Amino acid sequence: MSKTNDSSDSVSSSIDEIRGKQFKLLDDGFVRLVDYMGSDDSIVQAARISYGVGTKQVHEDRGLIRYLMRHRHSTPFEMCEIKLHVRVPMDCWRQWIRHRTANVNEYSTRYSEAIDASQRTSPGEWRSQSGGNRQGSGAYLDLDAGNLLSSREEELQKLSRNVYEERIERGVAREQARKDLPLSTYTEAYWKIDLHNLLHFLSLRMDSHAQHEIRSYATAIGNEIVAKWCPLTWEAFVDYRLHSTSLSRLEMQIIRLVTAGDKKKVLDFAKSVGWLQEGGSGWKSNREREECESKMRQLGLNVPWDA
Amino acid sequence: MSKTNDSSDSVSSSIDEIRGKQFKLLDDGFVRLVDYMGSDDSIVQAARISYGVGTKQVHEDRGLIRYLMRHRHSTPFEMCEIKLHVRVPMDCWRQWIRHRTANVNEYSTRYSEAIDASQRTSPGEWRSQSGGNRQGSGAYLDLDAGNLLSSREEELQKLSRNVYEERIERGVAREQARKDLPLSTYTEAYWKIDLHNLLHFLSLRMDSHAQHEIRSYATAIGNEIVAKWCPLTWEAFVDYRLHSTSLSRLEMQIIRLVTAGDKKKVLDFAKSVGWLQEGGSGWKSNREREECESKMRQLGLNVPWDA
Amino acid sequence: MSKTNDSSDSVSSSIDEIRGKQFKLLDDGFVRLVDYMGSDDSIVQAARISYGVGTKQVHEDRGLIRYLMRHRHSTPFEMCEIKLHVRVPMDCWRQWIRHRTANVNEYSTRYSEAIDASQRTSPGEWRSQSGGNRQGSGAYLDLDAGNLLSSREEELQKLSRNVYEERIERGVAREQARKDLPLSTYTEAYWKIDLHNLLHFLSLRMDSHAQHEIRSYATAIGNEIVAKWCPLTWEAFVDYRLHSTSLSRLEMQIIRLVTAGDKKKVLDFAKSVGWLQEGGSGWKSNREREECESKMRQLGLNVPWDA
Amino acid sequence: MSKTNDSSDSVSSSIDEIRGKQFKLLDDGFVRLVDYMGSDDSIVQAARISYGVGTKQVHEDRGLIRYLMRHRHSTPFEMCEIKLHVRVPMDCWRQWIRHRTANVNEYSTRYSEAIDASQRTSPGEWRSQSGGNRQGSGAYLDLDAGNLLSSREEELQKLSRNVYEERIERGVAREQARKDLPLSTYTEAYWKIDLHNLLHFLSLRMDSHAQHEIRSYATAIGNEIVAKWCPLTWEAFVDYRLHSTSLSRLEMQIIRLVTAGDKKKVLDFAKSVGWLQEGGSGWKSNREREECESKMRQLGLNVPWDA
Repeated sequence: MSKTNDSSDSVSSSIDEIRGKQFKLLDDGFVRLVDYMGSDDSIVQAARISYGVGTKQVHEDRGLIRYLMRHRHSTPFEMCEIKLHVRVPMDCWRQWIRHRTANVNEYSTRYSEAIDASQRTSPGEWRSQSGGNRQGSGAYLDLDAGNLLSSREEELQKLSRNVYEERIERGVAREQARKDLPLSTYTEAYWKIDLHNLLHFLSLRMDSHAQHEIRSYATAIGNEIVAKWCPLTWEAFVDYRLHSTSLSRLEMQIIRLVTAGDKKKVLDFAKSVGWLQEGGSGWKSNREREECESKMRQLGLNVPWDA
Repeated sequence: MSKTNDSSDSVSSSIDEIRGKQFKLLDDGFVRLVDYMGSDDSIVQAARISYGVGTKQVHEDRGLIRYLMRHRHSTPFEMCEIKLHVRVPMDCWRQWIRHRTANVNEYSTRYSEAIDASQRTSPGEWRSQSGGNRQGSGAYLDLDAGNLLSSREEELQKLSRNVYEERIERGVAREQARKDLPLSTYTEAYWKIDLHNLLHFLSLRMDSHAQHEIRSYATAIGNEIVAKWCPLTWEAFVDYRLHSTSLSRLEMQIIRLVTAGDKKKVLDFAKSVGWLQEGGSGWKSNREREECESKMRQLGLNVPWDA
Repeated sequence: MSKTNDSSDSVSSSIDEIRGKQFKLLDDGFVRLVDYMGSDDSIVQAARISYGVGTKQVHEDRGLIRYLMRHRHSTPFEMCEIKLHVRVPMDCWRQWIRHRTANVNEYSTRYSEAIDASQRTSPGEWRSQSGGNRQGSGAYLDLDAGNLLSSREEELQKLSRNVYEERIERGVAREQARKDLPLSTYTEAYWKIDLHNLLHFLSLRMDSHAQHEIRSYATAIGNEIVAKWCPLTWEAFVDYRLHSTSLSRLEMQIIRLVTAGDKKKVLDFAKSVGWLQEGGSGWKSNREREECESKMRQLGLNVPWDA
Repeated sequence: MSKTNDSSDSVSSSIDEIRGKQFKLLDDGFVRLVDYMGSDDSIVQAARISYGVGTKQVHEDRGLIRYLMRHRHSTPFEMCEIKLHVRVPMDCWRQWIRHRTANVNEYSTRYSEAIDASQRTSPGEWRSQSGGNRQGSGAYLDLDAGNLLSSREEELQKLSRNVYEERIERGVAREQARKDLPLSTYTEAYWKIDLHNLLHFLSLRMDSHAQHEIRSYATAIGNEIVAKWCPLTWEAFVDYRLHSTSLSRLEMQIIRLVTAGDKKKVLDFAKSVGWLQEGGSGWKSNREREECESKMRQLGLNVPWDA
């Protein structure tokens, strides 16, 4: 291992082209690549320290990276590090900061006046409460409602800013003056994280259950930056994490019985685990069963307890 | 080691008396002990695993705990864990959450409507911007100004809540409706952390540079809860961390020269490190020198470059 | 949330029965429950902080815990904490300690003489190098070889101990005398970790690819301790993590084409992603394809490119 | 903040000169810089995100970095990251790996045969057990003893290697064959860590209480690599951490009374905190008092309870 050339001299040109570039998000946010360390090559090198001399030929790089991703060998991905500069509404930042394995330097509204910008919602962007998903959004509201909501938003944001500025003018300490700023106020931060933990962040925040705002940021980071920085890793991540599904012990058993063609056994098993309880019209709602049904349909299998 | 009785059967009565009790903070916040694991005894036990059998008599517990604190042997303190329930304005929570080594479950304003309470500031509580300390507060503003500020605060908080409720009524998704809530809105969380990391949190947040709001919480956690939970550790922490000071290489050299009584050498040395540069009237401002002066006064030493 | 009774007053009797009990492992190792905080109830309570008042009836506890496990909502599981006392060969401990999110106090061979016990291998326990799996073991070696290997092991361990004791007698510092102890030497430690991170440890170390020694410890911790401590969580973990499988984007596509019955499309797709390259006799070896085949067989599906 | 040029284009030439160079340690170990991200400039930039536009002139870089170090504002130092390649005896690595905030890829003796090198101790390098410090070493043993110890070491290391190779030849799995390798066997690893956590590692491992072996590595990393990589940070670290001391609440009180010249009050206070208990001849041994005495002597102050 001692003689390998493992310094990142061969810089990836495509990633360096976007260094410093602002990817615009929401009405006034952005994400920007500041610096990075490592590449697909560094991941391969770190993995090969386990294999010792002479195994270079055994796996080619792409295969090795896909193997690592598939088997959740995460430490080689930790050898890459990235630093981003982001501008985000505080509401969105509250979710972002919950990822604890990153390094952060945020704009301080104790030292400086708060950034004079709040995220505004245009009339067509108001989302209704989701029916099925207690935490999510559904369809867009109509424009009439939207116009009203946006004008009330403007009124509130204007009052908030006026009150903030009055406090500053009257000599209130910045750390106290900020107390009633709306969560929509933009903040900025340097955010530094290793690739393994970044991929974990992306798998959660690019997911369809993530809130629209943070999902926009995650999608830009993934598609515009990581895909150019470590293209082999990105491809493997998309195949094995982002667009994968998992089957539980029970789901595997159901599918085995379905492919064996024994409908009675399937129904007996599903009943035995409590998935099929008679309701007024059809089976009672059961989340585990419904998620299994959705996976079976995705795989082109018939749901045996359907009429 | 195998035969020690290391389970926490002997519960400390004084800590169990406050379990579940709300310590009220600010106008509508609190901190409350939910659960804990370990005690001063567990710290001693963990430390003694290093010493093997038969060393029990060598140190008594208090001496051992003070030794560990003094020499920053932090792992035995990690053997204790505490879980608190807190109610805090989001503005304060933004600082709190920066401590990454804790476990957190926060009230979700995606799943539920936001808590209908914002931190209010009474007319006598408005603080002026600190002159010397760019991030801090100075004296309280007078009541005339305070009355005006508090009534504007009320107006803003009322509008914010009205706008939030209008959105909810019109069917806007909770995750979007919350976007303009003021940072003063209360949130709640379970917060679980080991004693070593809690002491680190307290050393930063009980400090005089910490913002008043979070300092109130930290002080309550320290004085009302930790002091009862692990009294020997708390005493050691107060002596060796909270009320300690540190002397840099340069400060030690200055003090050595001062106690040796050679004023010329002190001045020469201070000049050589750039601390004494002539300004208009007296020495130019220099933060390192000024912090050294303050420590010398604390120790009863004369500042040799004073007139 | 403020009025819930969330202190762990109702202790689980089955877990308290095993507190302090040594579960014996290998020839001279053990694992022992020292202390714990929380239970299935605490997980439910932490999750419900997100739902606010009045949602108790919506999910019953088991369903909620399974939902959290299925969707990798990990923070409620972090609310439980456990402290174990373990006795492990240093070789095994080298793997164990790689899990960074735990608190550890290990027996110190700087302060005390090394534990006078090394892991011995009986003649029937020597394992051959695995053929397929470069990091694993295959079948047991025969007893003739085993007898020889065990007697050489004994000789080496005896010399190692003699040399260690000679050094101590001649006054060599313990921190240096230990330098040639065999990795098989037993060490002891307190190991404290939250339930989420413990489950992650168990999912890796109970896996069939884990080395026999650490797998024994992980299996005992899971089956003997966690299963009694948090039975609902354990059941969900077994169903959704331990005995689950995942399907990649490519594997899902293959299965969809297989269940649609269009063999030509399957082969075309498999070729297009490089899985089917002609070798001397049949397809060239390809790990991604082979892992897909194994999953298809588990699900009762035919492998379409088999003869 | 948006328009700053914060990419690390201006590479420090002095650090790049040592990239890839092996710094030799012990008889066959080394440390080698593989890659890094950031510099003193990045720390300044990260700190300034708090101050907003226009504050560049307020502090010059060196002053700002010293301020951050002095007040333990650690997040800006986390913006720098370094990757080292190290070759270390496993005994030393056991201490190293206890620092949990690093990323690690270690040479695997499951996948590959163990490195054929053990740390050897030459006859003049055997250290005696320290008298005062239970965990440390004292003077070197004489050469007669050393010759004997080194020749026994050689005998043991030879047998260990022979036994290992016999196992491999007989087909024992590598993961099992390694079980009796001596702790002196060399291992290699990539080790990646941010600058804040690296400085914490160095403050503990360059300390005089650290074991000689790991102290050698830490000293090389500090003096040869970090000092060139981030020279302003290194200078601040040496002044404020490495060569600093801290005074507890009690020590400050003692010094205040000493400088006030009231010997009786000093003695009364020292007695009241239990530092002065009459023994057979002079005061009973008391660690807190003795550490205070040593600091007073360092500062040129008389110890008032000395005869």
